Amino acid sequence: MEIASETVKDLREKTGCGMMDCKKALAETNGDFEKAIDLLRKKGIAAASRRADRTASEGLIESYIHLGNKIGVLLEVNCETDFVSRSDDFKSFVKDLCMQIAAANPLYLKREDVPDAAIEHEKEIISTQAKNEGKPPAAIEKIINGRIEKYYSEVCLIDQPFIRDQKKTIKDLLGELTAKIGENVVVRRFTRYQLGEKS
Amino acid sequence: MEIASETVKDLREKTGCGMMDCKKALAETNGDFEKAIDLLRKKGIAAASRRADRTASEGLIESYIHLGNKIGVLLEVNCETDFVSRSDDFKSFVKDLCMQIAAANPLYLKREDVPDAAIEHEKEIISTQAKNEGKPPAAIEKIINGRIEKYYSEVCLIDQPFIRDQKKTIKDLLGELTAKIGENVVVRRFTRYQLGEKS
Repeated sequence: MEIASETVKDLREKTGCGMMDCKKALAETNGDFEKAIDLLRKKGIAAASRRADRTASEGLIESYIHLGNKIGVLLEVNCETDFVSRSDDFKSFVKDLCMQIAAANPLYLKREDVPDAAIEHEKEIISTQAKNEGKPPAAIEKIINGRIEKYYSEVCLIDQPFIRDQKKTIKDLLGELTAKIGENVVVRRFTRYQLGEKS
Repeated sequence: MEIASETVKDLREKTGCGMMDCKKALAETNGDFEKAIDLLRKKGIAAASRRADRTASEGLIESYIHLGNKIGVLLEVNCETDFVSRSDDFKSFVKDLCMQIAAANPLYLKREDVPDAAIEHEKEIISTQAKNEGKPPAAIEKIINGRIEKYYSEVCLIDQPFIRDQKKTIKDLLGELTAKIGENVVVRRFTRYQLGEKS
């Protein structure tokens, strides 16, 4: 099977692995990109999991003020080296994220941060909705799971579609950055104020 | 049950649903605002809304980034009119406050926000200090009160000495501003991030 050199390059950027390893992994998985990543990780060649364990204590604190000082965002993104934190790629990721938070108003950073009570509350509403719509009981659980995924993609920053390219999630964007700069990047925390809102 | 038209209006603004739907939902939930929202969602009329609650407050949200993006501050200050929020006096007060927070690192907005446990902890330390210094037992309470005042002036933004004029507190500064512009001004909330700190 012929593997496009573009795909090999993408896999290298995504995983940080060598050219020959990427080519071989793609050949073994018949060109399936995601499976190739899994394979590289299984072989212990891809650094993704190891990267996640490394500490990321450098980085940037950035802010963004929107709509004539009616919305404000404060954000901390960590990386591993001062060198990366000063790079244009990192800076522009941080700026994009500030605008994302201002515009898309996430309530949580990641899905693990959503309180159980909020999830239960959503599930109850979805379940009643589905019944009211006349969905068969057998289908309800699947509907709940699907709509909870949608809920996460609305309220969790990491799961939100990127406002400047809706085909990507913030997680995708983060993955691209990590692969490109070869360093672990952690979106640490954010705060969003809207003038006069109840906190 | 009589539903106040103000409540119906609030529900309309919060959910974007029609007047009659809102009125009906409030009637069915005996006027419970949150339950009425849930009911509208279950009926499939309201979308999952994260719209901020309605507000009458004006003011500014301002940010300040310090030390090459290693410290960041987000601040909300409220006033009564849009006219005041656009005035130079108000804007410069808000900017000064941002710098104050970055430099003087307050932990709380005002003394009412300090948890009882923190105060008890301070008092115990101060009391032991005073005894070790050989202060007479009769003086201890007065010493505690004095040093707790000092503690407030260190950790509460409103009680801190103003970094640009240590003879004034932030409370003094706020009083001067209020007197000058003839409008109530409330320092609503702030967040301060320092790169890599434990939150």
